[in-house]
Amino acid sequence: MKIDILKKTDINLAVQNQISDLFKQLGGNKQQINLTELLDGKNQISVVYCSENDEIIGIALMCTYKVISGKKGWIEDVVVNSKHRGKGIGRKMMNKLLEVGNEKQLSEILLFTEDHRTPAINLYSNLGFKVKDSRIYSRKMK
Amino acid sequence: MKIDILKKTDINLAVQNQISDLFKQLGGNKQQINLTELLDGKNQISVVYCSENDEIIGIALMCTYKVISGKKGWIEDVVVNSKHRGKGIGRKMMNKLLEVGNEKQLSEILLFTEDHRTPAINLYSNLGFKVKDSRIYSRKMK
Repeated sequence: MKIDILKKTDINLAVQNQISDLFKQLGGNKQQINLTELLDGKNQISVVYCSENDEIIGIALMCTYKVISGKKGWIEDVVVNSKHRGKGIGRKMMNKLLEVGNEKQLSEILLFTEDHRTPAINLYSNLGFKVKDSRIYSRKMK
Repeated sequence: MKIDILKKTDINLAVQNQISDLFKQLGGNKQQINLTELLDGKNQISVVYCSENDEIIGIALMCTYKVISGKKGWIEDVVVNSKHRGKGIGRKMMNKLLEVGNEKQLSEILLFTEDHRTPAINLYSNLGFKVKDSRIYSRKMK
């Protein structure tokens, strides 16, 4: 099992399709942005993946941004192939993102997860994330 | 009263100090990143401000980022000078950010606010933001 940061040169059709299929496990027919577009120079993103036998079985993304209150990371799209859950893959990918956060000297990393996702919430708590007294609000634009 | 997008060329010591003082109204001795650093080329950010008689009395920031699930906006650091609240300044600045979101063809805009901030929550609901079944988690890095 390998945990690494996805580089532009790692992207090929097989990788794109594997990540696309993996992402569908998040449910729904969600829109997907392709990897080449994600890794364009302007988008400040780190894509961590987990692979086993040349198959990508997990991904986790973190975008970094600066606002007046600090240089921060924002984690989204964390998904582990349903056949491979319970093996600590999510934790390993999150640890990699925390490493990236340290290297980039972020002041804070944020993420959100639905209240019913108990295993995810336990993992994040275990990694030092604290729940905020805040809810998240979303406005669809299209 | 004027609502506009802050450009690099708008920044001078007076503007920097006014925004810095305004930001302190968010409470605490929070770290502040200066405006020049915010508006560097790599940081995908729109800073909206409201000014009256050459004084900045409100700011609202939106960073944009791309993940697999879409091209999104993330609003933080919305603050209106306490002497000027209740005049619809927050709404005007938010509308400007929604315009920017449309221009940038974002699929979704996200923000979070503390559960006790009823006027802010009412404003966001009124602008079409819906509360998610999610809480936000934060990990301080330093």
